[in-house]
This record gives sequence, C-alpha cells and structure tokens, in this order.
Amino acid sequence: MSKLERPFDEELKLLKEKLLEMASRAEEQIALAIRGLKDREEKLACQVLDREEAINLLDIEIDEMSMRLLALRQPMATDLRFITSAMRIGSDLERIGDLAVNIAERTMDLLKHPQLKPLIDIPRMAELAQEMVRDALNAFINGDAVLAKQVCERDDQVDKLNIQIFRELLTFMMADTATIPRAVDLILVGRHLERIADHATNIGEDVIFMIKGRTIKHHAEEGREALRKTCAVDE
Amino acid sequence: MSKLERPFDEELKLLKEKLLEMASRAEEQIALAIRGLKDREEKLACQVLDREEAINLLDIEIDEMSMRLLALRQPMATDLRFITSAMRIGSDLERIGDLAVNIAERTMDLLKHPQLKPLIDIPRMAELAQEMVRDALNAFINGDAVLAKQVCERDDQVDKLNIQIFRELLTFMMADTATIPRAVDLILVGRHLERIADHATNIGEDVIFMIKGRTIKHHAEEGREALRKTCAVDE
Repeated sequence: MSKLERPFDEELKLLKEKLLEMASRAEEQIALAIRGLKDREEKLACQVLDREEAINLLDIEIDEMSMRLLALRQPMATDLRFITSAMRIGSDLERIGDLAVNIAERTMDLLKHPQLKPLIDIPRMAELAQEMVRDALNAFINGDAVLAKQVCERDDQVDKLNIQIFRELLTFMMADTATIPRAVDLILVGRHLERIADHATNIGEDVIFMIKGRTIKHHAEEGREALRKTCAVDE
Repeated sequence: MSKLERPFDEELKLLKEKLLEMASRAEEQIALAIRGLKDREEKLACQVLDREEAINLLDIEIDEMSMRLLALRQPMATDLRFITSAMRIGSDLERIGDLAVNIAERTMDLLKHPQLKPLIDIPRMAELAQEMVRDALNAFINGDAVLAKQVCERDDQVDKLNIQIFRELLTFMMADTATIPRAVDLILVGRHLERIADHATNIGEDVIFMIKGRTIKHHAEEGREALRKTCAVDE
C-alpha cells in the first residue's frame, strides 16, 4: 500500500470526479455538434474535433486509476463492482465522444451544400440522448437504480424518433435525387445519435449491475422477438 | 480461496476457452449474415437471430468469471491485465454479434425487393472483418503483439472499402430513385461491417495493452488530423 498516499475512499472519490468530468464533456460535445449542424456553423464542428483529445485522455486516466486500484487495493464486493463499472462507463463515454465527432464530420460535409431542411427532430433526438447521458451518470454517482432503469426505458423513444427521421429523409430522396447525399448524411447523424443513446443505456445497465449485483445486459434483444416472428423489419 | 475448487491457472485457461468460443461464434455470425445477404437466403438471416442469445450468455458468463477471479484471487500485474482485457474483449465480441444481427435485419428488409446488384465488395469487406476478429483473438491467446498490431493496421483497408461501397451506392441512388431504400440498406450493412472491424481493432489494442502494459487506444483519431486541417470530409 505504500505506493498510494491517499486513503481508498479518496481514490474512489477522485475516480467519480473524473467520470463526472468526462460525462459533462461528452454531453457538451453532443450539444456542440448538434448546434453546429442546426445553425450551420463550421466553427462549432471544428471545436468538437479540437475537444476530442481531452475526453480520450480522461478515458486513459480512468483506466489507469482503476487498474491501480484493482492491483494495489484488491477491493471486494461493492468496491470491486464500482471500479469495474467505472472502467466500462469510461469506455462508453469515450465512444459517445467519438460519435459526437462523427456528427461534426457529417456537418462539415453538409456545409458544402445548401440546407436540405430546417432540423427539428434531430435536435430533439440529441436532447433526449444528452439527457440520457446526464441521468445515467447521476444514477451512477448517487447509486440510483430507479433513475438508471428510467434511462434504459427512454432508449425506445430515441429509436422511434430515429425511424421517423429516416422515413422522412427517404421521402426527400425519392422526390429529388439531388437531395440524396445530404439526406444520407442526416440519416447517419440519426444513427450516431441512436448509438449515443445506446451507450447511455449501457451505462444505465452497468449502474443497475453495480447496485444490484446482477446483470440486465442485452436489453436490446427484447425488441427482436417481434422480428423473429414476422421476419420483417422496417427501419 | 475455499469457494474455488480449480487452481488459478485452470480458471484462466477456462476464461480463455470461453473467449475463443465466443469469438468463433461471433465470426460465424458474420459469415452467416453475409451469406444470407449475398445468396438472398432468409433462412440464414433467421439463423443469425436464433444464435444471438448464445453469444450474449457467453458475455455474461465471461463477465461473471472475471469478476469472481478479481474478487477471490486478487491477481497482480499480468494476470490482472489479462482478466480486465478479457472483460473488455467479451464486450467487443458481444457488439460484433449484435452487428451481425443488424446485418441480418437489413437482409430481411432487402429480401422484400428484387436484388439491386450482385454483391462483391461487401462480402470482401466481411471477409476482411472476419479475419481481423480471428487474428485479434489469436493474438490474445498467444500473447502476440505483432499480430495484434497488424490487426489494427488492417482497419484502414476496411474503411477504404466502405467508402468505395458507399460511393457506388450513391451513384445507384442518383441514377434511379427506385433503388434508394435498397441502397440505403446496403450502405448500413457497410457501416455495420466497418464497426465490426473497429471492434476487432479495439481487441487488438487491448492485446497490446495487455502485453506491453501501455495503452494505444484512440488510434482512430490519427486519421482525423487531415480533417482538422482541411475541414473537409468525404465518406
């Protein structure tokens, strides 16, 4: 234990703080990316690219802190679950940051052309996704399984919104081929947001695992029952 | 230690075997999904859906084994890195299985319509992705950092193939709006394969971390340097 100066509780507190910082940065990245897309501001998209590095460094830092705590402190039960959850949540937040960068990339592509349509549903979807990230982290910090479960349940709303966006854009493309490249970019933005919500859901599931000690992973497959029956999907 | 009957080495061996089984199932799922798509066989797509559950159960099993080893054995250094890597690799394989299901879903959608074009690049891309998964796992099992690095490097080929597929499909859509829904489905398949390759790359990175004890995560951002300069992306 001589390598550590801080008491264990303080180390855990620091780990929590790092995760909170990472989450608030990830959330900010989503907001910035969507604002850049909605208001057609290249400057904002570039800011998203610039700020990515900080999130990646936090992920590495969280991993290293967690490994050190596992190695030197050899935690049991609750603390062990907390630390392994922290590592997983770090990965999810890092992917969320990555997806915000992907949205910024789509924005830069879209800015080369006139606006296809004013965006309403995509910003709404982004808000939902941001809320999910925020609530998932709050559930983690406060050990709130009820809030974590609510986050998981909200994933459906985001999926439905994405299907709606996809259908509308399909109509645009069919009506006018000149809209295709832009519509495809926006379809991809919808996908990226859907995946951000998926990562928030992963975090919610991790929180429930951490609190209850049992896994509720693989929620997404429930919706596939219908598919298995009808062998028909629409996106 | 009384709760464990097997020696530690055997537990680690069992964990390795579970991961290998999971990897071979994930690889099979990709192959099955792409064969279903290429040969227009709904039966194969349905098989992918049926087999998903087994992969998910393996993921949970690997997580539980790892947590138990961390709690009861309190491993140090190399073993600690091996176990935390195993947990991460399990997550990546689970996502790969998920993406194979997504491809099967797209296939079911595509089978409602006549074939858009014979598929050549998508199966090639799938083969590359499968190879990456296989090699990443072999690198993990044999502690082969050189092979792991090769896996990471191959990610670029997959990305390039995906861009090529995307451009070709864009041409189809522009030429004939009736092709749009099918072309979009195929674009999404390309995306899913690209993400499968990304997960294989994650595994490769984890292997290098496990062997060398330092992280090479966030490789993907390197390619973004050019983007940061030109503020121009094409997909």
